[in-house]
Amino acid sequence: MPEQSHRGADPGNKPIVETRFRVRFYETDQMGVVHHAAYITWFEEGRSAFTRAIGYPYSQLEREGFSLAVAEVNARYHRPAVYDDEVRVIVCLEQLQSRGMTFSYEVRRTSDGELLVSGMTRHISVDERGQVIRISGAFREKLLAGVGRLERGG
Amino acid sequence: MPEQSHRGADPGNKPIVETRFRVRFYETDQMGVVHHAAYITWFEEGRSAFTRAIGYPYSQLEREGFSLAVAEVNARYHRPAVYDDEVRVIVCLEQLQSRGMTFSYEVRRTSDGELLVSGMTRHISVDERGQVIRISGAFREKLLAGVGRLERGG
Amino acid sequence: MPEQSHRGADPGNKPIVETRFRVRFYETDQMGVVHHAAYITWFEEGRSAFTRAIGYPYSQLEREGFSLAVAEVNARYHRPAVYDDEVRVIVCLEQLQSRGMTFSYEVRRTSDGELLVSGMTRHISVDERGQVIRISGAFREKLLAGVGRLERGG
Amino acid sequence: MPEQSHRGADPGNKPIVETRFRVRFYETDQMGVVHHAAYITWFEEGRSAFTRAIGYPYSQLEREGFSLAVAEVNARYHRPAVYDDEVRVIVCLEQLQSRGMTFSYEVRRTSDGELLVSGMTRHISVDERGQVIRISGAFREKLLAGVGRLERGG
Repeated sequence: MPEQSHRGADPGNKPIVETRFRVRFYETDQMGVVHHAAYITWFEEGRSAFTRAIGYPYSQLEREGFSLAVAEVNARYHRPAVYDDEVRVIVCLEQLQSRGMTFSYEVRRTSDGELLVSGMTRHISVDERGQVIRISGAFREKLLAGVGRLERGG
Repeated sequence: MPEQSHRGADPGNKPIVETRFRVRFYETDQMGVVHHAAYITWFEEGRSAFTRAIGYPYSQLEREGFSLAVAEVNARYHRPAVYDDEVRVIVCLEQLQSRGMTFSYEVRRTSDGELLVSGMTRHISVDERGQVIRISGAFREKLLAGVGRLERGG
Repeated sequence: MPEQSHRGADPGNKPIVETRFRVRFYETDQMGVVHHAAYITWFEEGRSAFTRAIGYPYSQLEREGFSLAVAEVNARYHRPAVYDDEVRVIVCLEQLQSRGMTFSYEVRRTSDGELLVSGMTRHISVDERGQVIRISGAFREKLLAGVGRLERGG
Repeated sequence: MPEQSHRGADPGNKPIVETRFRVRFYETDQMGVVHHAAYITWFEEGRSAFTRAIGYPYSQLEREGFSLAVAEVNARYHRPAVYDDEVRVIVCLEQLQSRGMTFSYEVRRTSDGELLVSGMTRHISVDERGQVIRISGAFREKLLAGVGRLERGG
């Protein structure tokens, strides 16, 4: 799976989850391609699939009073997606710290595997008042148990 | 102000607020015009301007534990707005009931007054648990005091 | 299938397509539920699935120079969807005319079938310059061949 | 204007444009604050104001067959904006090359000047077929004439 190649020396040690969906019409803009901000929401949808795949859906985390606030986003745009394309969003947990984590992303066109967008997001664990807190032990365990697995979310 | 003409026999009895802004690029789609769902968010932005204009911003209402849940939306699309157009959103409080209200809308291109979209939304007053409740007396007073005024929000 | 009951005397004569997906996080707002404008984009996604299911994807129609401009939208909000819910969008072609068509929609929570939102959209067939034109014979044939089928898109 | 301080030794040599608007309700998510992808669209709205301020609106550029495709986006989130906040988006043209340019951004709360989000976008000049081309001479002139000015767009 060549899309793992940029992930460092030993990508097999990192949990990776893939989800697939089609480009929605409203995600396009007048340039005739997907608007660049839409991919940021696809990264998020990839994270949702990631947490479902490890058995600890983000919705559960939120019900327990935790959130993963976004501290940084980076996206590099290689080729545009167009309406009705099926795309794969591949999410990799790059780093797990006591109070945060970093994910990397690849968005690929399903039909030919072409890399469309790559990126990363950095997150901080916060409670309901927005205070930084340690990531809960139960969530951390699920994240670590996910290491090395390739799951298809969605 | 001809845009009041469709509002019935005595539009002067109803509070009307107008706000203006420019079409944002991401609001367009690959047809080269504003996506139809974007106007629904403009209606909402018009309501925000409306509540600011009467001196009881919706943000204050929410801090006090009330929301105006949307029960129904209708929009009729006459002409498309395009990127960078300045548009006017004209909001009229059509009906005020004990537990709800109805607004009507016109979206017009500022340059020539052309009617782009017309519509209505119906709302129900709910508390923080989503239970239907009476509209607070203070908010109702501000709404009624606004009758007949034409305000420019924004 | 009880959700067909409001569709008139003989719903079996109308093409119906269903598609399923999960609520995305960004579709929520600070009320903690899906923003009312998001359902309008779900209606659209339902139409995309509809055209794929009948074998004439909307993307193909657009490549051939036709669009189905939205002339009217109506949505009634019964219960809110929340983040991570799986929802079913059920689209029914209610009326097919020479230059337009009308779809009706139901959005239901998959887990218990609860009706969340119902609505309709009315469309006009336009060419690339926005001029109203007859719906192409090939597309019409596919639409009519779809009558009575229940397809799962997606 | 303290917000220029991070822009290097001689920020006065770079064109800077500021625009202001209020946070819209639909831009929030269930965390009660503005969704992180919304700021990316604010950067874009800042660029729109920038091009209007230098007298060469982006809409004109597009009519002439040019686009500034987004090649990279970076955003760092410092504090959240909330619904109804008035925010200032400050855009600085950091680099101008023959076939591209880089902008930096600050999003600040108007009431107290607090820095909410900072970021950058990198762009490539493309024609209508998506081919990379030189930035037109007329647009370049307007960009350079804007150097050192502080304009309020909107």
